[in-house]
Amino acid sequence: MKTMIRSEETICAPATGTGGAISVIRLSGPESLKIISKVFIPLDKTVNISVIKGFTIVYGEILSGVEVIDEVLVSIFRSPHSYTGENSAEISCHASPFIVKKILELLVNNGALMAMPGEFTQRAFMNGRMDLSQAEAVADVIASSTSMAHKVAINQMRGGFSSEISKLRSELLNFASLIELELDFGEEDVEFADRKELRGIIVRVKELADSLSESFSLGNAVKNGIPVVIIGKPNSGKSTLLNSLLMEEKAIVSDIPGTTRDTIEDTIVIEGQEFRFIDTAGLRETTDVIESMGIKKTFEKISQAAIILLIDEISDTSGMINSRIEALRQNITDSEKHIIILINKCDTSLPGKEDDLKEKILIRGSETLLFISAREKYGLENIRSILASIVMNKKISSDSVIVTNVRHYEALKKVSLSLERVLTGLDGAIPADLIATDIRHAIYYLGEITGVITSDEILGNIFKNFCIGK
Amino acid sequence: MKTMIRSEETICAPATGTGGAISVIRLSGPESLKIISKVFIPLDKTVNISVIKGFTIVYGEILSGVEVIDEVLVSIFRSPHSYTGENSAEISCHASPFIVKKILELLVNNGALMAMPGEFTQRAFMNGRMDLSQAEAVADVIASSTSMAHKVAINQMRGGFSSEISKLRSELLNFASLIELELDFGEEDVEFADRKELRGIIVRVKELADSLSESFSLGNAVKNGIPVVIIGKPNSGKSTLLNSLLMEEKAIVSDIPGTTRDTIEDTIVIEGQEFRFIDTAGLRETTDVIESMGIKKTFEKISQAAIILLIDEISDTSGMINSRIEALRQNITDSEKHIIILINKCDTSLPGKEDDLKEKILIRGSETLLFISAREKYGLENIRSILASIVMNKKISSDSVIVTNVRHYEALKKVSLSLERVLTGLDGAIPADLIATDIRHAIYYLGEITGVITSDEILGNIFKNFCIGK
Repeated sequence: MKTMIRSEETICAPATGTGGAISVIRLSGPESLKIISKVFIPLDKTVNISVIKGFTIVYGEILSGVEVIDEVLVSIFRSPHSYTGENSAEISCHASPFIVKKILELLVNNGALMAMPGEFTQRAFMNGRMDLSQAEAVADVIASSTSMAHKVAINQMRGGFSSEISKLRSELLNFASLIELELDFGEEDVEFADRKELRGIIVRVKELADSLSESFSLGNAVKNGIPVVIIGKPNSGKSTLLNSLLMEEKAIVSDIPGTTRDTIEDTIVIEGQEFRFIDTAGLRETTDVIESMGIKKTFEKISQAAIILLIDEISDTSGMINSRIEALRQNITDSEKHIIILINKCDTSLPGKEDDLKEKILIRGSETLLFISAREKYGLENIRSILASIVMNKKISSDSVIVTNVRHYEALKKVSLSLERVLTGLDGAIPADLIATDIRHAIYYLGEITGVITSDEILGNIFKNFCIGK
Repeated sequence: MKTMIRSEETICAPATGTGGAISVIRLSGPESLKIISKVFIPLDKTVNISVIKGFTIVYGEILSGVEVIDEVLVSIFRSPHSYTGENSAEISCHASPFIVKKILELLVNNGALMAMPGEFTQRAFMNGRMDLSQAEAVADVIASSTSMAHKVAINQMRGGFSSEISKLRSELLNFASLIELELDFGEEDVEFADRKELRGIIVRVKELADSLSESFSLGNAVKNGIPVVIIGKPNSGKSTLLNSLLMEEKAIVSDIPGTTRDTIEDTIVIEGQEFRFIDTAGLRETTDVIESMGIKKTFEKISQAAIILLIDEISDTSGMINSRIEALRQNITDSEKHIIILINKCDTSLPGKEDDLKEKILIRGSETLLFISAREKYGLENIRSILASIVMNKKISSDSVIVTNVRHYEALKKVSLSLERVLTGLDGAIPADLIATDIRHAIYYLGEITGVITSDEILGNIFKNFCIGK
């Protein structure tokens, strides 16, 4: 993406989706107000767009020659007080695709260019209105469909993550200057920096970088849903359970008209967190899953999951259950995985005892045992609260700084590696210039996250995934 | 629809469609600014929403308790200078369905009601911001997908049609007062109104009403597309022709990214006018259409069409063609229908002569003969220009007042009938009070069009077809 070449240009794009009552067209760049003046006549003839102050709305007509294309509201923003930092305008017109197309044609005919995906946000970044991780969060905010994902994205957009990174970076910059001061006096063999104290700083910064990159597994789960598998014998009620959970979910999300989002099958939101049921269809087809537990394919599925729902029946006595959990545990290397055993069909196998059983939750470490009836929809509330508690234990609050972006994760990994080398260097009395190089690397990778250091390639990769008009 | 009960309430709704970069939420009613103040904190703490002037934009945060839901722009409008005529606000947020839902929830929790379809426009009508035919045109403007339909709808929205109706109505009101003055002096047998002169006025008003209602067939074609059938023997190239025309069309409409509208199969736009191919699939299946021309079903299709494309081959000699047209004409009662004969497959039947033939257009009355090759895509431009010229002859200009709404058409028919009775009355020396009643009827029906006279039922029917947020 040629980022610099277009900065002199004025760009335009539709900013709202299809349908609805009104559509908004965005225009940004040095010629914005001049172009608006050519296609828009204010109703109040005394209004002069080229001198009107920012954050003002003007009512009038979009004209193509003498033909009125639409009656619109135009919002005026003046540099630097706009989203992009440039002179900008937003045209709010009737939501007719024909009118939107006509107005865009008029803007282009009067000197504007059609914006590329993410170009408005890219300009905001180029003009210092936000750093790169904030710009990336804009796309996450738009894409977030659960309160958890929204919370983390909003925090990142508002600079929470950036300020953490900046803190780490400035600590390292201080460290680097001390080391480099030594290099300047290299011949005299002076040590300005107390090696022990420096080591302490590096250890602390590395710990912070590591804890941020460790948060990525949670951040990824928050952003893309927590992976869950349901396993169990054929006819144990796996799909009945999933359908029962999905049906409750659908009833919950569709309570306000006009805001229904595209429903992705086999995704359930509980207390603002998405749970993604991975390839359960495949598992459903596998015959006799528990008996053939050694089968590699099943464990591939399990290895992708953070939570395993194991459905069983009461008739299979508790001794059997224990041995099954043992079998599962032996095959799972990741001890972080949660296993939830669901004793299903309690309505038929234990008639009359439901009221007693459905209150019962047995917890042992990261294993939980519940009594349910997927068909009669009892015990579902317990499943929901157990799933929710697994997330709650991770303590995501509004201020939590969590890495959700794979680009940031990879940069943090590189930071950690460089700092690892710095520590080895300090321990092994390696020359200061080599240590300085590793510190510079760590500083570089931290800078890549916020965009202090960047390249056209990185920018191109980031903004090509944005929608047009953002 | 309880129109009056809700006027004290403040309503809210999403105003933009799904997707895109930003979404707009509308709020209107007496409590708008109070409700906004409860959920929105301006970045500039000195800004006070409750005293800020209209047509101003404020930047800040939507808060749910202490949690930031989004950073937004809020546009403030003050009564009566708003779309609805009430205090209003528009919240421009990130286009996340989650955020839109959250903000609507906040507004509702702070006293707003979710708007019903068309409720904003209905309020604009109730508050005298537009008359009823203008309100109806708002929906037509949003729905219009061709330049012709857009032109007619914009003209109606801007009051072109209303002013015609008002003129007719005020002429009749003058007439009515004269007649009613006579009734007041009834005993004295005075004639204030010169019967001959009055007759002249009624004839003129009736002619105008008739010409408006006659424009409905064109208006309907403009709004819903001009119906066209393609008929011809099996394998004569009907679907090849349609596909060739559709393919050209698709290339034309998709030149600006992000504005592609839903393509309706078998609809072609030529020079801003939509042509709708009716049930051509059915016709395609009919075997040997021309031979079995007497078949009732075929003529049902033809009777629905304004234009008939008859595909033939050169080998069937021109004499044959003449006799086929005769057969068609004998079965068509409506002489207004255009017949276009397309001699197809000229590339194979007349090799080497294409260049000569493809320039040839033979016109006889409302019949046209063209040489084409649907497969080789030649002659298509001629078809397009012939179809366009059929519409052009109807002379639709930006100022043309054309009836596109069946409700208006029906009201105008009733106006005409009432005036017919007035004329009979004047001719037959019927008592002035009966004449006055018929004039009052005509005035009433004209008033229904612009909404001077209305009922909850009429309003309910009109606005239920609007989208939410308009």
